[in-house]
Amino acid sequence: MSKKIAGPEIERLVQLLARLPGLGPRSARKAALALIKRRQDLLLPLADAIKTAVEKIVECPQCGNVDTVSPCTICRDERRDPSLIVVVEEVGDLWALERAQVVNARYHVLGGHLSPLDGIGPDKLNIGSLVGRAHSDDVKEVLLALNATVEGQSTAHYITGELARANVIVSRLAQGVPIGGELDYLDEGTLAAAIKSRRQV
Amino acid sequence: MSKKIAGPEIERLVQLLARLPGLGPRSARKAALALIKRRQDLLLPLADAIKTAVEKIVECPQCGNVDTVSPCTICRDERRDPSLIVVVEEVGDLWALERAQVVNARYHVLGGHLSPLDGIGPDKLNIGSLVGRAHSDDVKEVLLALNATVEGQSTAHYITGELARANVIVSRLAQGVPIGGELDYLDEGTLAAAIKSRRQV
Repeated sequence: MSKKIAGPEIERLVQLLARLPGLGPRSARKAALALIKRRQDLLLPLADAIKTAVEKIVECPQCGNVDTVSPCTICRDERRDPSLIVVVEEVGDLWALERAQVVNARYHVLGGHLSPLDGIGPDKLNIGSLVGRAHSDDVKEVLLALNATVEGQSTAHYITGELARANVIVSRLAQGVPIGGELDYLDEGTLAAAIKSRRQV
Repeated sequence: MSKKIAGPEIERLVQLLARLPGLGPRSARKAALALIKRRQDLLLPLADAIKTAVEKIVECPQCGNVDTVSPCTICRDERRDPSLIVVVEEVGDLWALERAQVVNARYHVLGGHLSPLDGIGPDKLNIGSLVGRAHSDDVKEVLLALNATVEGQSTAHYITGELARANVIVSRLAQGVPIGGELDYLDEGTLAAAIKSRRQV
């Protein structure tokens, strides 16, 4: 709003909402208006939830997950397989794997991927603590569940080197045709991976 | 997250963010993670902005706009033309007109449009107060800047009837081809309106 049409407080709310991923300036304005209009069922509960987040949410010192308890709920969960550590780039990846309910292990959140051009070297990621955990007698396998991108794969390559002296199997996710994927729409890299890793039926 | 992988506080934050317009479950999770990760430059300022919104933002008793002062900044602005009231459905429409900087008048926010099927009759909208304002000696014109939808136009029709006994000109926005619009992509209604209201060059 170029002309002054309201107190700066509303403009500030819009600007902060626009910094959230997925919200542009236009949807941030819509979100701010929804908050103001729906005071009881949206603004007050969100204010409360954000206050709680400020006060309670911490990073797990062991795996890098976020939670309101430390160590996090997953690290505390005795029913999880202690022999496997699943390495992910971000907490969102951990959530995706948990939603899929495909693995019952503990995680290690790197906090991103190696990106020398952005100044993100190994010291900026939680790699040292992963190497430490991998040397524990309990751990038999480290699964590198990193993104199938150039950055994800070069990060996986670096970590594989770092884990060379730990007594663990280092594995990575299978690559191939996604479930429901149509060959016509897949890129050459995916098709090449799917052919190379073909299985006998 | 079907399995318990974190305290309920994070899940609650995600659920509330997902209620904002424009954020689905997936982008709400991304937004929550961004908030948690960017504590200093995003979470704390947003917590503060929302707290301020809870405490300070009120609806203008005169025009229905939202602001931190009452009456709102626009109603207080002495440099605005007192003879024209621009009627809009929502505060977002008011913001859109102010961004365009095309009118220097005061507004009247209805709070929606008539929608009998949803139980929204004239008594649910700020129509009575509009009629009151239109009877003021200062006011010469009421511009119905409502959406060019069936609901917006039937609301405009109803308000025109209510303003019949006030000594004001009732006007509406022009309809036609939007700037940059390609005829091939326009609907029949727009083309019909553009032909009907054609102007000599």
